Amino acid sequence: MHNVKMLIAYDGSAYLGWQKTSMGPSIEETLQQVLEQILQEPIALQAASRTDAGVHARGQVVNFLTSKGNIQPNRLRISLNSLLPKDLVVLQVEFPDPSFHPTLDCIGKEYHYDICYGTAQLPQHRFYSWHYPHRLDLSAMREAAEKIKGERDFSSFCNFKKNAHYKHCKREIHTIEIIEIDSERICLKISGNNFLYKMVRNIVGTIAYVGSGKIPLKEIPAILSSQDRTQAGMTAPAHGLTLHRVFYEFSILS
Amino acid sequence: MHNVKMLIAYDGSAYLGWQKTSMGPSIEETLQQVLEQILQEPIALQAASRTDAGVHARGQVVNFLTSKGNIQPNRLRISLNSLLPKDLVVLQVEFPDPSFHPTLDCIGKEYHYDICYGTAQLPQHRFYSWHYPHRLDLSAMREAAEKIKGERDFSSFCNFKKNAHYKHCKREIHTIEIIEIDSERICLKISGNNFLYKMVRNIVGTIAYVGSGKIPLKEIPAILSSQDRTQAGMTAPAHGLTLHRVFYEFSILS
Repeated sequence: MHNVKMLIAYDGSAYLGWQKTSMGPSIEETLQQVLEQILQEPIALQAASRTDAGVHARGQVVNFLTSKGNIQPNRLRISLNSLLPKDLVVLQVEFPDPSFHPTLDCIGKEYHYDICYGTAQLPQHRFYSWHYPHRLDLSAMREAAEKIKGERDFSSFCNFKKNAHYKHCKREIHTIEIIEIDSERICLKISGNNFLYKMVRNIVGTIAYVGSGKIPLKEIPAILSSQDRTQAGMTAPAHGLTLHRVFYEFSILS
Repeated sequence: MHNVKMLIAYDGSAYLGWQKTSMGPSIEETLQQVLEQILQEPIALQAASRTDAGVHARGQVVNFLTSKGNIQPNRLRISLNSLLPKDLVVLQVEFPDPSFHPTLDCIGKEYHYDICYGTAQLPQHRFYSWHYPHRLDLSAMREAAEKIKGERDFSSFCNFKKNAHYKHCKREIHTIEIIEIDSERICLKISGNNFLYKMVRNIVGTIAYVGSGKIPLKEIPAILSSQDRTQAGMTAPAHGLTLHRVFYEFSILS
């Protein structure tokens, strides 16, 4: 079997997330159906990240195995894009190391979260940015980000009950940058080795609460050490989040 | 009567343009209906620019006259935004000079035109950016822009027959900047005193043709002097265009 790796981007608005479900359209099923139509064989996809309903991707990495030995990467990419809906695009197709696995080989991910905080949100941002109309103290948010960064137990930012889903909740956040795009819009760039369920959105919601004064900056250490989800801020909505990039040891598809 | 000035933004995707038409939804009619619902009197709107079907706005300026003397600008803005569809937003409401007229007093406009020129377009840009998948020579495009700038007859970039609609076709383009947003996306920022029908999109289409080599740079002076629309490049599609800002003598709503 031949291993095929793809870099894909999508607007998650119309999907129930990456993973196939009987409840409605998923990225996985949409891509799988078009691949099966082209390759005329059953295809099983694996993705670096099972993004949630409504979450977007700029650089999701997926793979599949195929019996077809004559695939031409660029031709396959063009065929896929001509058949896929416009909200799901294949950016690159390549042959990785035969053993490549997008989830198991992944050494880190970078997410971007976009917030519009003016009194009104420009309509052009409404599908890709959270409208959180509060005066934000960006320097307090940056201090909160510094406190959250690092290697620690992130149970306080996980929407699964502790120990119900993961062996442990220790993860490492490498960077949380807060970029000012314009006077009323910021982007939080968060990278780490691995993320718990809704962890990015819970971190964003908590940092936003610090920015608007709903959570005092000085409470961040207690929130982290409580290992209690109810102590942290809200889960920021899905539509502000984009899986920006996935990191591997030897190659980065970007 | 009291004069009320508003700064508005819209995603033009679902509209047949600013101007009311029996053919389908317009920005003008949508905004007028909600204003009439709130103010309980007939309202006539005027806009700085009658944007075409599918064109977006970040800073359109409109006004209307009302008999109501007790309008509170910020309250009216909030009421409007709570009733308007999400693709049409009122950013500011204010009382201008009683004689203010958004079209007659306008001394200039700035448009932004977004182009994605990679082999695939990110889905997040598909409603707001033209996908023109060609290798672009940006320095040739910048030279073409320099040649097009200035005060001259722009008949070659007007989709109305010469003299059929305008007294004359002399206009002044102040700036055409080409900004690299990332490795596969640019924004053309075009400002001028006044624009002919589809002039911005015809200038963009022509500059894009220079970038991809379809029109040689050296032909630009002949295209300009021909005063013949058929000599210039294609009309770039509406969805890449945004009315960014409107300029007035004494105040700029931005």
